Amino acid sequence: MQFTAQELGLMLNGTVEGDPLVAVNQLGKIEEAQAGSLSFLANPKYEQYLYTTNASVVIINTDQVLARPVKSTLIRVDNAYVAISILLEKYNSIKLHKAGIEQPSFIHPSAALGENVYVGAFAYIGPNVKVGDNSKIYPQCYIADDVVIGNNVTLFAGVKVYFDCKIGDNVIVHSGTIIGGDGFGFAPAGDGTYNKVSQIGNVIIGDDVEIGANTTVDRATMGSTIIHKGVKLDNLIQIAHNVEIGANTVVAAQTGISGSAKVGENCIIGGQAGIVGHISIAKGSQIQAKSGISHSITDEGKKWAGAPAVSFSANMRSLIVINRLPELEKKINELEKIITELRSSH
Amino acid sequence: MQFTAQELGLMLNGTVEGDPLVAVNQLGKIEEAQAGSLSFLANPKYEQYLYTTNASVVIINTDQVLARPVKSTLIRVDNAYVAISILLEKYNSIKLHKAGIEQPSFIHPSAALGENVYVGAFAYIGPNVKVGDNSKIYPQCYIADDVVIGNNVTLFAGVKVYFDCKIGDNVIVHSGTIIGGDGFGFAPAGDGTYNKVSQIGNVIIGDDVEIGANTTVDRATMGSTIIHKGVKLDNLIQIAHNVEIGANTVVAAQTGISGSAKVGENCIIGGQAGIVGHISIAKGSQIQAKSGISHSITDEGKKWAGAPAVSFSANMRSLIVINRLPELEKKINELEKIITELRSSH
Amino acid sequence: MQFTAQELGLMLNGTVEGDPLVAVNQLGKIEEAQAGSLSFLANPKYEQYLYTTNASVVIINTDQVLARPVKSTLIRVDNAYVAISILLEKYNSIKLHKAGIEQPSFIHPSAALGENVYVGAFAYIGPNVKVGDNSKIYPQCYIADDVVIGNNVTLFAGVKVYFDCKIGDNVIVHSGTIIGGDGFGFAPAGDGTYNKVSQIGNVIIGDDVEIGANTTVDRATMGSTIIHKGVKLDNLIQIAHNVEIGANTVVAAQTGISGSAKVGENCIIGGQAGIVGHISIAKGSQIQAKSGISHSITDEGKKWAGAPAVSFSANMRSLIVINRLPELEKKINELEKIITELRSSH
Repeated sequence: MQFTAQELGLMLNGTVEGDPLVAVNQLGKIEEAQAGSLSFLANPKYEQYLYTTNASVVIINTDQVLARPVKSTLIRVDNAYVAISILLEKYNSIKLHKAGIEQPSFIHPSAALGENVYVGAFAYIGPNVKVGDNSKIYPQCYIADDVVIGNNVTLFAGVKVYFDCKIGDNVIVHSGTIIGGDGFGFAPAGDGTYNKVSQIGNVIIGDDVEIGANTTVDRATMGSTIIHKGVKLDNLIQIAHNVEIGANTVVAAQTGISGSAKVGENCIIGGQAGIVGHISIAKGSQIQAKSGISHSITDEGKKWAGAPAVSFSANMRSLIVINRLPELEKKINELEKIITELRSSH
Repeated sequence: MQFTAQELGLMLNGTVEGDPLVAVNQLGKIEEAQAGSLSFLANPKYEQYLYTTNASVVIINTDQVLARPVKSTLIRVDNAYVAISILLEKYNSIKLHKAGIEQPSFIHPSAALGENVYVGAFAYIGPNVKVGDNSKIYPQCYIADDVVIGNNVTLFAGVKVYFDCKIGDNVIVHSGTIIGGDGFGFAPAGDGTYNKVSQIGNVIIGDDVEIGANTTVDRATMGSTIIHKGVKLDNLIQIAHNVEIGANTVVAAQTGISGSAKVGENCIIGGQAGIVGHISIAKGSQIQAKSGISHSITDEGKKWAGAPAVSFSANMRSLIVINRLPELEKKINELEKIITELRSSH
Repeated sequence: MQFTAQELGLMLNGTVEGDPLVAVNQLGKIEEAQAGSLSFLANPKYEQYLYTTNASVVIINTDQVLARPVKSTLIRVDNAYVAISILLEKYNSIKLHKAGIEQPSFIHPSAALGENVYVGAFAYIGPNVKVGDNSKIYPQCYIADDVVIGNNVTLFAGVKVYFDCKIGDNVIVHSGTIIGGDGFGFAPAGDGTYNKVSQIGNVIIGDDVEIGANTTVDRATMGSTIIHKGVKLDNLIQIAHNVEIGANTVVAAQTGISGSAKVGENCIIGGQAGIVGHISIAKGSQIQAKSGISHSITDEGKKWAGAPAVSFSANMRSLIVINRLPELEKKINELEKIITELRSSH
């Protein structure tokens, strides 16, 4: 896609300064942009780059004062940051525009698709599946029996959704994510082997949830594993059976949440953290990356760190001493020597 | 699927008390169940819920004494827990019933499929593959050249099995799991770059193994990576080349086992644990979540924790002191002051 | 595939001792090999196995002296290790030989495929995609709009590449890996919910890179996430948006690198390590498994360990004291008692 400065100026309701016919076909940071790129300057702190950038077109604020001449074509707008956000969304919606039913795909005759649904080639939509309006099922997705998918949902290529799961409106799920695989439930048979416990629950994903790539959300043993409205999960996260994650909680990559744990609303959980099963995390908790949460957190809105985790500040204090442990031990040994001398000379 | 209390009573050889025509179409925990749900009471400890539940039908033990009237229809059976297990399995086997060869699928003419095999649409079965009786290859699975798959195996949607790998009987593999990808083997070329070491071994998976979603089991450099009979692996686990995992060992999510490590039988390994390469873990070892095992464990049946791991009890003792380190340091500094005074006044 | 000792001798320009017609159809370690296997002895340290092995054919060095009779057929070559490497590569290239366009596959009319390209069944190649010569796109791969793929590239079954990404020459990507999923970028809306930040950058993968199975490499918010030439990534790794990994750096399984981190050339990063966002790691750094890197590393070529990481040697010293903490605390308490006595008796 290529646009001239003039076309962009019209789109953004801005004023063009310089050659209106110069064209751009990519976006770049002002300090790294090449010829043919569009860039922007929203923060006056970076004004210096305006005079050295190779960007062909730069969007700037109306009130930006120029100290020196600029070789790029400028587009002046009320708010450069808002303007670039609008462009990014337009760009993305063009890039992500997909429509129609590609062939070959597998759509069971009993499945019900809404208006304006995209089904990519090699996607599989099983018996009794319902897909809402304007949803996009990319190639190689698998939607098993009786799954219900809301409106404006995007499942990128290769997402797998097991039977009976429910996905709300405006949900985005990235490639390779598995929703509704069996919970890890086995009962010892007494002879060292295990019997599988049937996992007959499902997964319910609320509206406005986004889930990254290659994450796994297991179905409940009975009942539902629930990801509430507005939750954001990163890549390679493990959500075990019967977990419940409160609204608007954000979880970074490679974190694992064990069976039946309940995480409150508006929590922020760092990467590679672990939460043991059957505990509750109070709403607004902030959990540092790599932490191991082994007990319920009942106090709302606090910060936690370490494995097993303690309060963030207690963890900081302990870490400082840990790095001084060898000298501390030396000091203790010296004190011991002095005391022995004192004692014997006493 | 909908059943009346009467139908369930016949299936379970139980006695119906209350309206035999009331119908249920889902299962729920007794304390959460809605109207239209089936529930059960196996543990007399939860008797209280029997009087408040909204479940339409509840399965209870024959000898359960009622203290108050109950509004649900009851089905009395010898053992409510066994009865519900039977129902769950029946439910699951109906839900997971799949048969026949869906189109389009790719089955190489040299592949040999057993009796009553399911091949989902967009599944790929390569040259010389053998699939045993009653096995199910869900949509979008990829089975490469010369793979051998036993009887009663279920590979859920999107499982990939590289060439030459062998899968035993009654194995279940969940979506997105990759079996037989190359081991991570590179030889330094001397100039900072690396040469790939060809990975020509395979993966052998024993009978009765279950593997979760998005787990990776690498092929051996030479010989076999072996997952023995009855092993249960959770989601997002990394099993490196030439690893061997003993029978009936259970590994929780996001654990990583490095190249050529040998894990004994009947071990229990928590989530996010790591085991370094070329070591052995004695049978019956129990490894705490997030542990890092850096040396061989020769003592059977012991518990380990920490990174690097020590015995569970030693780890507990150290953790207690770690959280007291700041006060311990303060105490040492105070003792030092006193000693200096004592000494100078001496 | 089956070869006689005679055929192997001709291939390797070696001398056959024993039955030249004995045939082998698999490879095995000399100490584990079964009848029908080919093995080799390169290291004289393992000579003992030569007299007990069940391998039908063993490749040995010309100058290997035999102390006792050997029942296997021997093939003598100048360098047994080099000979076996040649055979492994031949074996692998036969096993991995794939050619042609399998049906059904989806190739957009605007896509441009080079000479001798393999496209597996159920692979999806989107609009304007370019694929170089001799590249292999295995079944069920998804290559989105405008992706550029170099020469001699192998994408194993089920790899997904989002739009606009670029992959260099001689790259290998294993099954289930996702390239170009959205970076994890959300701006707080002020009411507890989040607005998605459009992720319009891409991923650039240099020549000679290998990426394991089920790894995720997110696209940049703007600009590019860059994996430079010769990098080797293992399985289940998370590479966040705008990360840059320097040439020939090696990263073990389950490690996570957060947004905008820059890792230098020729680093070695162990498994399950974590690197926080927006920091730089000096070239040649060696990072121990499970480490957490929370600050930039400016000193080149050093070893780091712990979470948060310190120098490898400082970490070792602290770890030694940590395991002695309980006895250290006891000692401090005893010293305290003595001091109190000394003081009172003073």
